[in-house]
Amino acid sequence: MVPVKALEDKILKEGEVFPGNILKVGSFLNQQIDTAFMNLMGEEGRRLFEDAGITKVLTVEASGIAFAFAVASKLGVPMVFAKKHGASNVSGDVYKASVYSFTHKKTFDIVVSRDFLSAGDVVLICDDFLANGNALNGLIHITEDAGAKVAGALIAVEKGFQGGGDLLRAEGVRLESLAIIDSMEDGNIVFRESSD
Amino acid sequence: MVPVKALEDKILKEGEVFPGNILKVGSFLNQQIDTAFMNLMGEEGRRLFEDAGITKVLTVEASGIAFAFAVASKLGVPMVFAKKHGASNVSGDVYKASVYSFTHKKTFDIVVSRDFLSAGDVVLICDDFLANGNALNGLIHITEDAGAKVAGALIAVEKGFQGGGDLLRAEGVRLESLAIIDSMEDGNIVFRESSD
Repeated sequence: MVPVKALEDKILKEGEVFPGNILKVGSFLNQQIDTAFMNLMGEEGRRLFEDAGITKVLTVEASGIAFAFAVASKLGVPMVFAKKHGASNVSGDVYKASVYSFTHKKTFDIVVSRDFLSAGDVVLICDDFLANGNALNGLIHITEDAGAKVAGALIAVEKGFQGGGDLLRAEGVRLESLAIIDSMEDGNIVFRESSD
Repeated sequence: MVPVKALEDKILKEGEVFPGNILKVGSFLNQQIDTAFMNLMGEEGRRLFEDAGITKVLTVEASGIAFAFAVASKLGVPMVFAKKHGASNVSGDVYKASVYSFTHKKTFDIVVSRDFLSAGDVVLICDDFLANGNALNGLIHITEDAGAKVAGALIAVEKGFQGGGDLLRAEGVRLESLAIIDSMEDGNIVFRESSD
């Protein structure tokens, strides 16, 4: 089984499209997680980045945690998640970035304790979704602020039509998405052709 | 290696006690996660509950997700996490419970979409920490509200001296904690003797 194809099939079968280009994949990727399938996705992440010398996988709470954990487990490295400030009880010195959320229509800070990222780290950033790229840019900022290297970013589902992913690729970020949706007008999900 | 003993050793080596009986285990269990160790804890969870016919593992975002995912992966079942209301974009009908957080000194709602729990489910509730038991009671309430069966609860670190765990045991909940701290006065962590 090709995980990418399997993910596309699962999105078509179990995903739901709501007005405003909202895709819900809560039945297997978020809120409810198909653990066997998530571990397959983690294995695919390992395959894509095993040559990159990754020392840490970084994500942001809460929906990115399971995917990042699966990928980090397969790579055999620790996983670190940024906390959303206010909801957090992170103490001491932190790396911080501001992220605007279109879903919640507000800006919030994400923070990582300075204990968990350092100049020697080679970081793979993981998230379940990529739309405008704001969360990903925040995590890149935090990684660079720590003096660590951004080896790349791995996304489960990229909303290609929102442009954040292609902008990051144009900036030279090694960005891999397991599925890229190029349009979902009228509830019809169209995937980008894979170059694999 | 006995995972319970290994967890106690890791708490003593990497945990930090702060005033107000706050234990930080952010270096391996929360914010940064030691994935190999977490998978060992998941395997121990499988060993403890493999006889219980579990169909789903339930936790609450965010710090419970990695542990619950590890346990659910080993049991071969889906994992569901309750969202904290307000921070969530759960739509439609939900099961809901109110939880008072001593850490944040406020009450918040936790919600699970009705799509992801049903009367046929046999649920293992997982969380990283148990102190007063408020989050656990909320998750039990949600499970019972769905008409599902609470098979038991699995906790990584129980603060035994705060009493929530023993109260739940007295009420007949099958509660297993991988490590139980009976006191941590002046920064000295004392574990409860295991009955294993």
